[in-house]
Amino acid sequence: MKLYTYFRSSAAYRVRIALNLKGLDYESIPVHLTRTGGEHRQEDYLAVNPAALVPALVEGGRVMTQSMAIIEYLDETHPEPALLPGTPVDRARIRAIAQTIACDIHPLNNLRVLQYLGRDLGASDEQKSAWYRHWVELGLAAVEAMLAVDERTGAFCHGDTPTLADCCLVPQVFNARRFNCRMDALPVISRIAERCEDLEAFRLAAPGNQPDAE
Amino acid sequence: MKLYTYFRSSAAYRVRIALNLKGLDYESIPVHLTRTGGEHRQEDYLAVNPAALVPALVEGGRVMTQSMAIIEYLDETHPEPALLPGTPVDRARIRAIAQTIACDIHPLNNLRVLQYLGRDLGASDEQKSAWYRHWVELGLAAVEAMLAVDERTGAFCHGDTPTLADCCLVPQVFNARRFNCRMDALPVISRIAERCEDLEAFRLAAPGNQPDAE
Repeated sequence: MKLYTYFRSSAAYRVRIALNLKGLDYESIPVHLTRTGGEHRQEDYLAVNPAALVPALVEGGRVMTQSMAIIEYLDETHPEPALLPGTPVDRARIRAIAQTIACDIHPLNNLRVLQYLGRDLGASDEQKSAWYRHWVELGLAAVEAMLAVDERTGAFCHGDTPTLADCCLVPQVFNARRFNCRMDALPVISRIAERCEDLEAFRLAAPGNQPDAE
Repeated sequence: MKLYTYFRSSAAYRVRIALNLKGLDYESIPVHLTRTGGEHRQEDYLAVNPAALVPALVEGGRVMTQSMAIIEYLDETHPEPALLPGTPVDRARIRAIAQTIACDIHPLNNLRVLQYLGRDLGASDEQKSAWYRHWVELGLAAVEAMLAVDERTGAFCHGDTPTLADCCLVPQVFNARRFNCRMDALPVISRIAERCEDLEAFRLAAPGNQPDAE
């Protein structure tokens, strides 16, 4: 398997965690998102993923894109350890936590969005930071509420083994810390993120441990 | 089953399509997103979904949120007709198309985001429209590229029956038209959307056919 990745992309970070949890070997192909106008916008990469986003996973000549879709694929083709365990209701909850992060928080703080705010709307760095923190804090408060009130929350987001939800949570927490978002009202998230970060699968997937880290 | 819905919410629209495709009866509970500061932000609804977003599906005392997670749940519990048919590679493609819409386009054009642009960044109506069209046109161009180059595209996004991808595509096309986005460079999307809209399941799910339509 080949993974087109960028060390700081939190969508790629999610997939790296899942690959590590499954114990799968893969080759990293770095795609630099800011150098020379963005390698993801160049012809070579557009031939891999016309959406011009990382990550993309290549296996058996097929290109797969979108981090949650890739993780579902890995879970279907390599069922152990299960990243979507339990009943349909359990999986609905795991996917909902993952999507609260991947749909409601992360897309608003993607590099291309911050660039648009500055370039087209004249937002200052301060306004861009406020925007970033607003969506992270609002979104993580929703995740905290989902986790805090539910008896299905365990050592991890759902039960006592890492799932798709944790694959999405940890990169988002990483970014939240990097941009100094308020985390003090998020005790369950903080506890779960720390527990995850103790695991080698999460540690090896972190931005600082990638071949293209700067 | 009870569906908390808002006629214009494209995430709720996706779930309505899926429920109709499965032939499932459900009770609509409208949650008005703009009246009195937004019914979704009031205590009653926050007790259902602390993330303050529609849709939410209630079945057997369990609340499920996030449209794609709900549709996956419906597909697991009511397998026919399959909304995620085929092999793991097929499902990865269907999910990737759905997520390109649900993660890369729709979150940027949600009501709360447009409100923030005006209120906190002083964006004019014209700037908000340009923002809206920018993300829709960029995102749908990516979807068009995914559909146009792939032999797995059929009468619908993936093969000749509607899937999760079509449940996401049609509400996005509905919004794109409503906001006068350019559609002339999107022949495959336009063809598929029209084909879907011929089906009763899609027609009955449309905003104009909801009990809370204005």
